[in-house]
Amino acid sequence: MPLESREGDTSKARLCGVEIGFSYTITDSIRFNIDQGPFDFILVPLMYPGFVPTEDNDPNSRILDHRLLPYAGSDFNVSCNRWNKLAYGKISPWLDLDSEDETTRMDAEIILKKQIEWASYLSIKACVLPTPKGNCCANYARCVNQILQGPNNMKLLVRFPFGMSDDDYSPGSNDLVDSWKTWNSFRLLCDYHNQLMVVLDIMRVLPPENSQKRWYGEPVTAAILDSDMFLTKTRGNTLYLPKRHQKLIADFFDHDIRIIISGLKVLNEAQFTTEGSKPHPLLPYRDQVSNIYKQMVPPSEQERLEFGMRDFLQLPLRPLRNYTQAKSYDTWEKDKVKYINYEIAICKALRDRVSNEKASEIATVLVVVGAGRGPLVRSSVQAAKRAGRKLKVYAVEKNPQAAIALDELIRTNNWSSFVYIVSSDVRDWKAPERADILVSDLLGSFGDNELSPESLDGAQRFLKKDGISIPSSYTSFLQPLTASKLYKDAKEIKEILHSESACVVNMYNVDRLAPSQEVFTFTHPKSFVGESNQRYQKLCFMIPNDTGSAMVHGFAGYFNATLYKDVFLRTEPSTATPKLKTWFPMFFPLRTPICVESGSRLEVHFWRCVGYRKVWYEWCVTSPSSSPIHNCNGRSCWMDL
Amino acid sequence: MPLESREGDTSKARLCGVEIGFSYTITDSIRFNIDQGPFDFILVPLMYPGFVPTEDNDPNSRILDHRLLPYAGSDFNVSCNRWNKLAYGKISPWLDLDSEDETTRMDAEIILKKQIEWASYLSIKACVLPTPKGNCCANYARCVNQILQGPNNMKLLVRFPFGMSDDDYSPGSNDLVDSWKTWNSFRLLCDYHNQLMVVLDIMRVLPPENSQKRWYGEPVTAAILDSDMFLTKTRGNTLYLPKRHQKLIADFFDHDIRIIISGLKVLNEAQFTTEGSKPHPLLPYRDQVSNIYKQMVPPSEQERLEFGMRDFLQLPLRPLRNYTQAKSYDTWEKDKVKYINYEIAICKALRDRVSNEKASEIATVLVVVGAGRGPLVRSSVQAAKRAGRKLKVYAVEKNPQAAIALDELIRTNNWSSFVYIVSSDVRDWKAPERADILVSDLLGSFGDNELSPESLDGAQRFLKKDGISIPSSYTSFLQPLTASKLYKDAKEIKEILHSESACVVNMYNVDRLAPSQEVFTFTHPKSFVGESNQRYQKLCFMIPNDTGSAMVHGFAGYFNATLYKDVFLRTEPSTATPKLKTWFPMFFPLRTPICVESGSRLEVHFWRCVGYRKVWYEWCVTSPSSSPIHNCNGRSCWMDL
Repeated sequence: MPLESREGDTSKARLCGVEIGFSYTITDSIRFNIDQGPFDFILVPLMYPGFVPTEDNDPNSRILDHRLLPYAGSDFNVSCNRWNKLAYGKISPWLDLDSEDETTRMDAEIILKKQIEWASYLSIKACVLPTPKGNCCANYARCVNQILQGPNNMKLLVRFPFGMSDDDYSPGSNDLVDSWKTWNSFRLLCDYHNQLMVVLDIMRVLPPENSQKRWYGEPVTAAILDSDMFLTKTRGNTLYLPKRHQKLIADFFDHDIRIIISGLKVLNEAQFTTEGSKPHPLLPYRDQVSNIYKQMVPPSEQERLEFGMRDFLQLPLRPLRNYTQAKSYDTWEKDKVKYINYEIAICKALRDRVSNEKASEIATVLVVVGAGRGPLVRSSVQAAKRAGRKLKVYAVEKNPQAAIALDELIRTNNWSSFVYIVSSDVRDWKAPERADILVSDLLGSFGDNELSPESLDGAQRFLKKDGISIPSSYTSFLQPLTASKLYKDAKEIKEILHSESACVVNMYNVDRLAPSQEVFTFTHPKSFVGESNQRYQKLCFMIPNDTGSAMVHGFAGYFNATLYKDVFLRTEPSTATPKLKTWFPMFFPLRTPICVESGSRLEVHFWRCVGYRKVWYEWCVTSPSSSPIHNCNGRSCWMDL
Repeated sequence: MPLESREGDTSKARLCGVEIGFSYTITDSIRFNIDQGPFDFILVPLMYPGFVPTEDNDPNSRILDHRLLPYAGSDFNVSCNRWNKLAYGKISPWLDLDSEDETTRMDAEIILKKQIEWASYLSIKACVLPTPKGNCCANYARCVNQILQGPNNMKLLVRFPFGMSDDDYSPGSNDLVDSWKTWNSFRLLCDYHNQLMVVLDIMRVLPPENSQKRWYGEPVTAAILDSDMFLTKTRGNTLYLPKRHQKLIADFFDHDIRIIISGLKVLNEAQFTTEGSKPHPLLPYRDQVSNIYKQMVPPSEQERLEFGMRDFLQLPLRPLRNYTQAKSYDTWEKDKVKYINYEIAICKALRDRVSNEKASEIATVLVVVGAGRGPLVRSSVQAAKRAGRKLKVYAVEKNPQAAIALDELIRTNNWSSFVYIVSSDVRDWKAPERADILVSDLLGSFGDNELSPESLDGAQRFLKKDGISIPSSYTSFLQPLTASKLYKDAKEIKEILHSESACVVNMYNVDRLAPSQEVFTFTHPKSFVGESNQRYQKLCFMIPNDTGSAMVHGFAGYFNATLYKDVFLRTEPSTATPKLKTWFPMFFPLRTPICVESGSRLEVHFWRCVGYRKVWYEWCVTSPSSSPIHNCNGRSCWMDL
């Protein structure tokens, strides 16, 4: 029974699981907890937990490779389909694969592999692996890596503490193991394997916020909430969770992390019953979790539409190379906020251009550069109406298909007397007169990355000396990211050459490690012709002190554009224009992630290079260590001139 | 005129160059310094050095992309062939590609590229690039990387100081730029490009030895020795070099680094003459360098034979998988030291086995495991003769081709009465009697890597309880390396899957970063049957404090074997058996090099894994940072059982 059944909610977070103890009759456990209980799946040990071979002194009873192990009953009554859908396997938590003792270590390896083989035989989809003991996990990782590289397709979820218990906590102490570091080492050893994931054990004392956030860039599948974390109000004897824990769980839901309630203690105390007459002893706990889910602001329609696009890498459009398709125009034209801002900007510019007194005499000459199917023509006409100014519009569009729709728009609206279609590349067009205002929307996700500077250079020829460009300037921004999924995808997607193409992506499971910084600025019209469009910027990001160490997998790119005076279009998160839909951020991957320490400096270089036939970015890191220079000579991604 | 013409000396180090000033008449420079002078090649500027555009205030004379630049005369009299053979191009040293000033930076980029284009047009083989100014070299590296990734095939040699000048030196101060660090960053930015190399400027104050050595693992082409480095004896007015400089130059020669004498000052002072009547003003300097070369111990015949094998990666043999070829037997049997040691060991074992009194009664049963064409049979027979003991030999060999030669050896020597050929895999052989002594030479470069443990397990069946195995034990060793060439080759050679196959290599241009440490030990006969041949070892190397930071590109593997009691075969460098020829070291590459700081800890894990059909190693680094686990499940290199 999912936490809430609401239309369109397909997130994994709506499922709630329960960690239960060992049972030889798994059918009963499923009936009690799922079929007749309030949970969606169980996390269940695959082997009798009391069984610890290395504590057994009788050599004849020691575990050997060929002997049968005390598994949870294979149970003919549970089909593989149910195992697959309803159960996570729990690997014996006492296994110590990095023990100093060779026998303990080698036995642990044998038992681990046997349990996984059995889980695989049952078609179990995922197994939860014990938390690494101590700092070193090399041998554990080697065994897990061998399993991952083998034929089975199971997810292996390693369990890590999130925060610490009251016992571990002493204010100001920093010498505790940073479990993220252990995880990072583990997954580096396993070379970012796709099936290697994380389950977090929520502890009483939560880590500082920047340290928490790092996990949002990691493949966290679920978080385990022990029944001990719940407190009881003196009055009414009702359960509740501390505020910080409530907020954390809401954040987890927001990052598609499902909750597993660990009910080992409660279930042990409760009378085990399969009759279903009494309510499930964990129901109040589940209700608390369910309440948090219900109180969250439901995703907007737009967000729901974008669910499927989350963390999905797309190569950016190259409008100068390929003709845009109708469906893309359809999508773009839905962005009301964008066109309203254009309308306001054009309106202001028209009023500045022509005084009220001369409004009826002078027709302002406005050129729409890249008119597409006409949304900016519409904004211009509406702006002129609002401003009470006369207008003459040249709508320049190089895509002949779009010009057909544009023509229809003009005829339908009876604009033919003052709107002229120019079916041409703006760089080739011989304008019959000079323009007062250039209007364009050639901005890409990183501002200049769809060659707005070069296109407007071409248009500046026919702009009056005191003419106005809308937008009048734009600045790109960058921000370092922990984003293991994006990194892995950039490595694996064949179209992303050398794992170094800039991509457009609706970022979701990422952690932004430091505030974004300005990169390149372009202003139009240019102060002198021939001003270079090459750029070089060195950026220095400081990793906050409470972050702990973190991995930089790449950079998010945004832009802020000034359309005219105080009218902006902004995608940089801290100043973003609300409800602007057109642009997802850019992602610039690093071919090899770079580890940064808290309080350290991350030095990054970005270039915008201009050749005879193309424009491209190159980028690199030089501190704390040097990366290769990415995309040399634009070998992997570029914009054709 | 090379430093010395001696037979078989094909090393590059025997060539000596001279750095000269700018000249519009390059023909004269070549005639004066090479044809009539004592040098083999010149290092010559490609552009008039006084020309510094950014110091020029007249905007009309500023360098622009399309204007002709003041090049050294293209000179129809110098053919491309001569340019190619006799000249290194020197790029203007004042170019500052990381200047804070944008104009300086952009001009520098244009001029650098123009000079390289011209050098490329002339077929110049290598250009010497200026030392990076300051710590940051990102933009410089970006420009160089764009050139390297372009169509031309020229070597780009970046110039770095080696040590410091008297002015820079203050004892105990450490805040000087470590030029190795700048180089390391530069080449990381250029992603280890093959054509990117180093030229070192030898300074007055040399760096500490461990810091020096790092350069031996780098692609250092030449070292420039300024005439200022030479001192004059008061008596006799003769030139000499300080002792440490002499030793350094000898070390450079030993690592195939040629010397370029920078004669700018001397040549400026001397009267420039093309008539050749006076001796060349730099002749005394060159003679000093030549003397150092002549005083070096000439390479042995063996070393000359191995010239061509230096730093050449070979995949190791797999004797259990493929039959060995006759030419391999030829090579192996040339190793006298090896067989003499076997003879001594067998001799001692025979004497221990049978007392003098019973020498004429008892025939010791000796089984040669993997007899090949019989060298160990010969050693055994000679040992028996020397020991005065009677012998019965079973020569077990699975390669039927080798058995033919073995048979001939036995018949020729009339050993047929006591030497029996067994043409079989030792693991399948049903021995007619139990053996006193097993003799084998199944050791690979890393000791157990040719499955000696598994083969001797098979032979132990027919060894008497108190029998002797020769070798009686062997231990492998590992040592971290800076070895940029080996790393690059491991990345580029297709047969080296995933850049992670262990290779056999005659290591030469490498730096050994810390003393080697023991890894796996095997002892024969085993104390109990079924003792596992799996192994796991965690190693901790300390990087010496005077090294500076360094890159670990992989690990060298060696072994020490005890044949019998005090008779050894050892390849571990600090204890190596002199003149042992059979084994080159192993190289275990890292897929991504790891940077270590001086005084820091390098933690490495090695596993010997045993499956049903194969044996393989896995390895990883966990400190200072975690690498992937290499060769998971033996996917890239393994030994078939």
